[in-house]
Amino acid sequence: MKKSIAIDMDDTVADTLDRHLTWYKSEFGISLERSDLIGKKIYDVVPEHHLSTVRSFPTHPDFFRDLKVIDNAIEVIYELSQRYEIYFVSAAMEYPPSFNAKYEWLKRHFSFISDMNYVFCGFKGVFNCDYLIDDSSRHLDAFSGQGYLFTSESNAHVSGYERINSWLEAKELLG
Amino acid sequence: MKKSIAIDMDDTVADTLDRHLTWYKSEFGISLERSDLIGKKIYDVVPEHHLSTVRSFPTHPDFFRDLKVIDNAIEVIYELSQRYEIYFVSAAMEYPPSFNAKYEWLKRHFSFISDMNYVFCGFKGVFNCDYLIDDSSRHLDAFSGQGYLFTSESNAHVSGYERINSWLEAKELLG
Repeated sequence: MKKSIAIDMDDTVADTLDRHLTWYKSEFGISLERSDLIGKKIYDVVPEHHLSTVRSFPTHPDFFRDLKVIDNAIEVIYELSQRYEIYFVSAAMEYPPSFNAKYEWLKRHFSFISDMNYVFCGFKGVFNCDYLIDDSSRHLDAFSGQGYLFTSESNAHVSGYERINSWLEAKELLG
Repeated sequence: MKKSIAIDMDDTVADTLDRHLTWYKSEFGISLERSDLIGKKIYDVVPEHHLSTVRSFPTHPDFFRDLKVIDNAIEVIYELSQRYEIYFVSAAMEYPPSFNAKYEWLKRHFSFISDMNYVFCGFKGVFNCDYLIDDSSRHLDAFSGQGYLFTSESNAHVSGYERINSWLEAKELLG
């Protein structure tokens, strides 16, 4: 039986930080750089009076639509799918208006993975895959298999986890 | 740590057969009774030239909206939630237009279960709960824990599974 890999979506395969920065500039005329977000979430760096607007961005049905794909994710995951059972596991329950955009995004970019292997959930501790690749350490904490922290700006200073810094590194490690 | 129960939605807690019969009557003026569906799916009993319409019913965004709750499901699951970690696990990926209606239905009738414990998926073999209550034997086949076939019209003749015939029976067995 193939080993299985659960793969997170946001900031693991889909670039939501880019969307946050674009919408923030469009709303407030202020350019933030990715380098401003090292070790931080956008909620940590915007002024207090912008916070409720910025927090509302991901609740918009279009926020998760047409997101850029993280570099090399498609080709590496295609290759991994030849050896592993791949699941996309997104904590979409945190933003229910995101369901349709997330589903369509996966179908568009990862149609080689059956949608029977897409999972929208909240708590990820309930999956018994062999591996989980996720940029959120709290999901790795709950996971019973081998977790890998996918490096993103916000988790740059998080320690204590095995890391995957890029999809090319994932290919070397698991391919 | 609490033991965990994964609970299916369609025809386990939400009465989709009732919706099928209502929409079928509304579309074709023909009354089918639940007793006509013993051991069958609706697709097995309607005439060939109605089939494509009937198969399209669950792809409508409103099909899963305002479904009746299966008898005693709410009070029994509330009671079980005091002793067990409860997850609602629906193969919603089979009908992506159902996401919003299913989410809203769960929030409306089962708001005492955190939406972090709602799961929309395809293949249910990936969950490591202790129990799965489901009216589809194929999901029980894939499940690694103890499965219970929740009795519905369509599975009346299926054998080889532990059964739960009603939510009152679930309370006796697991309560």
